[in-house]
Amino acid sequence: MQNSVTVIAPVNIAVIKYWGKRNEQLILPINDSLSVTLSTADLCSKTTITADPSYEENKIVLNGKEENFDNERITRCVEMIKHRALESESCSKELLAYKIHVDSENNFPTAAGLASSASGYACLVYALAQLYGLKKQEISDIARMGSGSACRSIYGGFVQWQKGVQLDGKDSIAVQIAPASHWPDLHVLILVVNDSKKKVGSTSGMARSVLTSELIKYRVEKCVPQRIHSITQAIKDRDFSKFAEITMKDSNQFHAICLDTYPPCVYMNDVSHAIVNFVHEFNRNEGETKVAYTFDAGPNACLYLPEKYVKRVLAFFNHVLPNDNQNSVEYLRGTPVDIDEETEFSQYTPYERNALKYIIHTKVGDGPSIVD
Amino acid sequence: MQNSVTVIAPVNIAVIKYWGKRNEQLILPINDSLSVTLSTADLCSKTTITADPSYEENKIVLNGKEENFDNERITRCVEMIKHRALESESCSKELLAYKIHVDSENNFPTAAGLASSASGYACLVYALAQLYGLKKQEISDIARMGSGSACRSIYGGFVQWQKGVQLDGKDSIAVQIAPASHWPDLHVLILVVNDSKKKVGSTSGMARSVLTSELIKYRVEKCVPQRIHSITQAIKDRDFSKFAEITMKDSNQFHAICLDTYPPCVYMNDVSHAIVNFVHEFNRNEGETKVAYTFDAGPNACLYLPEKYVKRVLAFFNHVLPNDNQNSVEYLRGTPVDIDEETEFSQYTPYERNALKYIIHTKVGDGPSIVD
Repeated sequence: MQNSVTVIAPVNIAVIKYWGKRNEQLILPINDSLSVTLSTADLCSKTTITADPSYEENKIVLNGKEENFDNERITRCVEMIKHRALESESCSKELLAYKIHVDSENNFPTAAGLASSASGYACLVYALAQLYGLKKQEISDIARMGSGSACRSIYGGFVQWQKGVQLDGKDSIAVQIAPASHWPDLHVLILVVNDSKKKVGSTSGMARSVLTSELIKYRVEKCVPQRIHSITQAIKDRDFSKFAEITMKDSNQFHAICLDTYPPCVYMNDVSHAIVNFVHEFNRNEGETKVAYTFDAGPNACLYLPEKYVKRVLAFFNHVLPNDNQNSVEYLRGTPVDIDEETEFSQYTPYERNALKYIIHTKVGDGPSIVD
Repeated sequence: MQNSVTVIAPVNIAVIKYWGKRNEQLILPINDSLSVTLSTADLCSKTTITADPSYEENKIVLNGKEENFDNERITRCVEMIKHRALESESCSKELLAYKIHVDSENNFPTAAGLASSASGYACLVYALAQLYGLKKQEISDIARMGSGSACRSIYGGFVQWQKGVQLDGKDSIAVQIAPASHWPDLHVLILVVNDSKKKVGSTSGMARSVLTSELIKYRVEKCVPQRIHSITQAIKDRDFSKFAEITMKDSNQFHAICLDTYPPCVYMNDVSHAIVNFVHEFNRNEGETKVAYTFDAGPNACLYLPEKYVKRVLAFFNHVLPNDNQNSVEYLRGTPVDIDEETEFSQYTPYERNALKYIIHTKVGDGPSIVD
């Protein structure tokens, strides 16, 4: 048994959104959600954990800065993993007694507006599981207690977070619908929007929605179960057009619920809505659904699209959202791609220049893994 | 019986929104709506109708420009009024046989983004009713066939448009909840937002919502009936705080339904949402609800507020939405008001300059009337 382990864990982007808890403490959601895990080659958290008899206290360093280990969510994750390892005798009691040092970092800037807590807590919990000999199937509920959507980053590919019905949350876990290898053709463009507006954090935003939105009840009871069912089938069939439509509708409905909250939570801005319009206009004019948008609790767009359309869609967005840095390596990040120098988009009136900060190109990917 | 009549009719702004038809042809709504009629002293349509045996054809001039009389909605209104007058023998058959000339204009620019079709059709139908001897109580369903919300402009004060249940729409009429004199203290500020974005028209927008929004069903069945009941009581009690909360929640829910539409309809922009945030921040810091917002199918805010807060709220918005023309008569239109030169709003960070075009100050007012 090694006393040190380094792992990486992926970011995930929901296509059926998680919004609203039935238990704040245990982080139990009011509806199932479903996400696509993104490739760790482009975006990931990386965590090293070392356990040593010489350590006098637990320590955690996040992105190079020492943080307080006594954070409730961190402590809870560590203690639950140790408890489970003790119960299942998956490692020695000595090892469990050692203090630990955690060093964690993201390879993407916080400014990208990506849910770094999902990959971060998945990484922490997966690293602890590796250290103490637990299996992947035993830990998604613990990752969930760090940050709800972190449970979905425990698996690669297409992942459903089942809300569960038990009061203790034991059945509120993530399950893999299909691995990344099922649909490797599914690529992703993240359009990072220039935005300075302060906004309502997602924890307080969703609490407010549960308390004040009247429409959220209908979403949770009627809409989400149907959508989970339909999009699961679309994923199994690799039916991009159906997958895209449900994804876009659910993103819109999630933001509708935020707007129906009192006072309202507004995460999308004028640029976000311009992107929505451009996607619909593009799909309509191309005669088929080539790209789908989804927006989390922020203004950035996450676009899903089949690999064969990446060049064309990038050329389209370079036309409609022109940027002074368009040809710099800093502007198009992630997996390299040649952009066709298209000239046929003149029918579309561009939005004002420099509305985007940069674009990340990535794809569906695998779950957490050990770094040698 | 005169052969010529000139009338004016008011604008109305809904506090419980009309969105969605059950019958496109008859303009029958899927839910009740409720509005406040605004004073004709500041905003109105004005229509002169003359009937004369010498006229060889019907003519209509709108805002100084001759338009086609054979517009379906105009023809329908004229024919229904004549039919009703004939049935009730409210005027001579000779008069009904004469061709008419209609001259109609609004005293507010279309750019104000106000629903000029509501005051315009109310004015046309009220003028015809005056000409042919019909009563106010007999014409709101006919105004509705011109433009749905026009039926609410047939009355002053606080007006409910009852959706009705009959297939022929005979019971889809407006009724007055309370006259303007019941709550004359209720003032209005219309913040006209600088915006150039083309948007989905409300007729096609609401048709798309009925077809594609899943949440609209719940709104119509559960939310609106409760809100109509509660806001009617708030109006009867002159309970501004309750009136304000329901008004703001229903505006938000209406825009949530628009966003839940596929493809989504987006009417509010970043400036609109900034106004929403400022209103909530202001009310919270003032320790009471002093002002409420509502947004129709466009970016402009309509603010309701008790008269005693008008100066302070104007001073607040001059601070948070500063404008180069702030001190010009062109900027603050409608009923004149002195703005206190307040300096105590420094705690609020202003939005970017010149986000507004201008502001109109008005109040609750009476229904259509004859101009001598």
